[in-house]
Amino acid sequence: MTELGPNRYGKQSIRLVRVIRGPVHRVRDLTVDVSLEGAFDAAFVDGDNSSVVATDTMKNTVYALATEHLTGAIEAFAVDLARHFLEAEPVSAATVTIREQAWQPLAAGGVPAPDAFRRTGGSTRTAVAAAGTAGVTVDGGIEDLVVMKTGRSAFSGFPRDRYTTLREVRDRIMATRVSATWRHAGTTADWDARHDGLVNTLLATFADHDSESVQHSIWVITNAMLAAEPGITEVTMRLPNLHHWLVDLAPFGGTNEGEIFVATSEPYGMIEATVRRSVGA
Amino acid sequence: MTELGPNRYGKQSIRLVRVIRGPVHRVRDLTVDVSLEGAFDAAFVDGDNSSVVATDTMKNTVYALATEHLTGAIEAFAVDLARHFLEAEPVSAATVTIREQAWQPLAAGGVPAPDAFRRTGGSTRTAVAAAGTAGVTVDGGIEDLVVMKTGRSAFSGFPRDRYTTLREVRDRIMATRVSATWRHAGTTADWDARHDGLVNTLLATFADHDSESVQHSIWVITNAMLAAEPGITEVTMRLPNLHHWLVDLAPFGGTNEGEIFVATSEPYGMIEATVRRSVGA
Amino acid sequence: MTELGPNRYGKQSIRLVRVIRGPVHRVRDLTVDVSLEGAFDAAFVDGDNSSVVATDTMKNTVYALATEHLTGAIEAFAVDLARHFLEAEPVSAATVTIREQAWQPLAAGGVPAPDAFRRTGGSTRTAVAAAGTAGVTVDGGIEDLVVMKTGRSAFSGFPRDRYTTLREVRDRIMATRVSATWRHAGTTADWDARHDGLVNTLLATFADHDSESVQHSIWVITNAMLAAEPGITEVTMRLPNLHHWLVDLAPFGGTNEGEIFVATSEPYGMIEATVRRSVGA
Amino acid sequence: MTELGPNRYGKQSIRLVRVIRGPVHRVRDLTVDVSLEGAFDAAFVDGDNSSVVATDTMKNTVYALATEHLTGAIEAFAVDLARHFLEAEPVSAATVTIREQAWQPLAAGGVPAPDAFRRTGGSTRTAVAAAGTAGVTVDGGIEDLVVMKTGRSAFSGFPRDRYTTLREVRDRIMATRVSATWRHAGTTADWDARHDGLVNTLLATFADHDSESVQHSIWVITNAMLAAEPGITEVTMRLPNLHHWLVDLAPFGGTNEGEIFVATSEPYGMIEATVRRSVGA
Repeated sequence: MTELGPNRYGKQSIRLVRVIRGPVHRVRDLTVDVSLEGAFDAAFVDGDNSSVVATDTMKNTVYALATEHLTGAIEAFAVDLARHFLEAEPVSAATVTIREQAWQPLAAGGVPAPDAFRRTGGSTRTAVAAAGTAGVTVDGGIEDLVVMKTGRSAFSGFPRDRYTTLREVRDRIMATRVSATWRHAGTTADWDARHDGLVNTLLATFADHDSESVQHSIWVITNAMLAAEPGITEVTMRLPNLHHWLVDLAPFGGTNEGEIFVATSEPYGMIEATVRRSVGA
Repeated sequence: MTELGPNRYGKQSIRLVRVIRGPVHRVRDLTVDVSLEGAFDAAFVDGDNSSVVATDTMKNTVYALATEHLTGAIEAFAVDLARHFLEAEPVSAATVTIREQAWQPLAAGGVPAPDAFRRTGGSTRTAVAAAGTAGVTVDGGIEDLVVMKTGRSAFSGFPRDRYTTLREVRDRIMATRVSATWRHAGTTADWDARHDGLVNTLLATFADHDSESVQHSIWVITNAMLAAEPGITEVTMRLPNLHHWLVDLAPFGGTNEGEIFVATSEPYGMIEATVRRSVGA
Repeated sequence: MTELGPNRYGKQSIRLVRVIRGPVHRVRDLTVDVSLEGAFDAAFVDGDNSSVVATDTMKNTVYALATEHLTGAIEAFAVDLARHFLEAEPVSAATVTIREQAWQPLAAGGVPAPDAFRRTGGSTRTAVAAAGTAGVTVDGGIEDLVVMKTGRSAFSGFPRDRYTTLREVRDRIMATRVSATWRHAGTTADWDARHDGLVNTLLATFADHDSESVQHSIWVITNAMLAAEPGITEVTMRLPNLHHWLVDLAPFGGTNEGEIFVATSEPYGMIEATVRRSVGA
Repeated sequence: MTELGPNRYGKQSIRLVRVIRGPVHRVRDLTVDVSLEGAFDAAFVDGDNSSVVATDTMKNTVYALATEHLTGAIEAFAVDLARHFLEAEPVSAATVTIREQAWQPLAAGGVPAPDAFRRTGGSTRTAVAAAGTAGVTVDGGIEDLVVMKTGRSAFSGFPRDRYTTLREVRDRIMATRVSATWRHAGTTADWDARHDGLVNTLLATFADHDSESVQHSIWVITNAMLAAEPGITEVTMRLPNLHHWLVDLAPFGGTNEGEIFVATSEPYGMIEATVRRSVGA
């Protein structure tokens, strides 16, 4: 005898570009994922699709609702979409994840062009709205934000066993690709201002602290974000440690005082943690 | 006031190739991830690394232990590694994930070559061992197994709302990239035989059933796996629906009776579920 | 004053899957690129599109011609497509590149399933047909064929300067991802038999030779291919050297007699050469 | 009888990060490829490595020379490296390709941080120096510069045959990922100023022209670059046409006046051309 355990389904990588026209155009470039949970046992066990919203319908819905609902931030659009998908029987939870790639106006003749843009890589803004019987939660976030500290980063005092060969260093490169999400206290906010404020705090604190480890940096940065923005309740940060190893130039008669490094892609460290306001705080 | 919530850290993408020499060589090609949890608050809050096993040490440990412990299946190696990493203070949980890419002997002069190999793509075997205070769990699995049904696959009877345009079909292509994991009941087994048996059941059932939907296929296939192998307690399957759309040749004076398709990569459906033995079964 | 130099345009990554139905189905999975050259100066200089075949039309043409022309090998389909595209004014050269991913029938109940398939990764078959005023050339080939020699591979006797630290070795791992193309003498052949014969010779020779370097291996393998198949005139081979470094286990009290390696992805060597029949041969 | 045709070898993806220290740090992040040609027949035919510079030595050389030679632009470093590698017998041509990813100082407390950086994605600067018996050529360039025109882009007047279904449009989105290289007239220049000037001209012209096709845009943009910078002799531009299709909202009762698009990744158009100063110009 078997039974259906946790399950969900949906549509991923719905690519939606909106051009908001006017004297000056604006471009919104989104990738939307929709995922539903609910009492879908009949679909699995009996092959009965009578309550299975087609994932093709989900895709159509995202495009159809964009006209009216994609007027502001992706957090708001995600909330509207999640609420829409929650309405269908027998959906009990609808999660909408949106990634936004930024485009900036190009300059033409010294002024911003009204209808030409450059994709500004370096990071992706994210929003996740999860609608369920207990209400709606909204997470903002950022991905693929690649940063580096060339000073004020150490790693020392760690335990040594028979397999430890790493030297203690008080001055190393710390390079990472930041993934971070934060839980908003409510479902409405000045999303853009809040997002920009949090990312600015993240970056400024990354730049302006003395790091004893990636763990320590996560603590310092997330605390700064929670202090700066009372509208969020917790931050989850995931930082790969993208190792840069000092090249030994001695065999070639050279010296290397922290100047020449080989950047490596594997293996890499991975440190992740959630930091939240204390209960009662 | 803030506090540290869930956290973990480790090393990812440790690339390890072992050549087992003898009259006939064998190649084992692994990618190992190590992740630890425990009372690491001091590292985060105080920058105190006195209990932080360096991820570089984790990497060294994987290579050092390979000589004695990587003699059989990756499930066994993962268990040994997880138990080793659990020993350090203050680790309360150690998870080791291993992906193995298969290499097969090349034929030379009609017989298998003793020392030349071809990587046989198409899928990756996985093993996850999680050691904690409650014991050790072992999950086997497979990734990137790309399969297709060109017959006996339907999708019909689904609800229609104002955003539904998908036609009902009793004969469609179902193409997917299977990711599946299964929980073993214990920590020892004839791992290779069990893995091969489960994958064979998965493939044979995929081929030999009438599918009403991806959900339905997951149910049928996972039930066959649970029936075939009493040593597993549950199967989690994750199937993207890689859409193949029939090309309309009518504008060119042609007909297309289920012959010519455009394969698409985005968007795609995603269906996932865990199927387990019922309590008391 | 400026002028238009070399130029070309076309459509890339046209994804075409054909299901050939019957008592037993067969699957053909192609990615087609089309590229045209010709006197397109007016399009560039004057913005005059009157002779610019739309790349969307190229895509449609590939699908429309598949019904009648994709009945055998990709080499033949590439030739037919290239000849078709050459017909339009002012095209002077049409190049069609096709990559084919193989699918094999799954076994169900001990016999091949008639309508279920598994993608057999590990390599891609390629064909390039170039039609021009001088006729049509056909290149066959293979990509992403990953192979390894764990014995009979050396690299020694190379020059040493002040920047050389590599040790000479008579026994190393040679791992590579083969890209090879071969020029056919004509435009018709038993393409499948010839392709299989050439790949078999490539693999058997890779397995069964003593390698002094990647360069040496390219020479030995391509000569075997030219000897085995009189219908080809030259072979171009491109072999990255995917380094596997022996792990030093001495710091941990271990020994490593050519058993434990770290596989690296960058940097990598890259060796490529064309070997051809001598003029007059 | 066979003979060795065109051949070359080298090292690819040498990852080099230099931190230039001082009151304010600077980061240079390069990926270097080295490729050599010459009379290497003995290596291929006889397995004689006596003149084969090890690719490992190439890697060491890049790191060793960085201290003295990577002080300015990548164009200059590429020239120095190419000249160095040309010195070895029997090298007749040495090509060094460098890609640089930009890092910008982070702001901390309103001022640029001295030792913290953010990788500014969106494009990669490239330099290729080719040293041979005829001297040294230098190509600058840019890759992965993703741009979009939401106005002033048309495609009409193209020929229609039985396979043409594309509608003529006077207003479409043109999105592309620019790859461009330009040949410098000499081997010395104010590389950074020239690079920035050319990229600015490229972007401003992209923004500020009326496009009849991608071909037409290439002509207009490259001519502007050649007019703005007398120190270059030709520009090669490679522009994929990353199609954005208008979504039909009519089935859902909506209208779509050039607002809602689906961004696609395949298939895509590909247009490339070299534009050069006329002989005698």
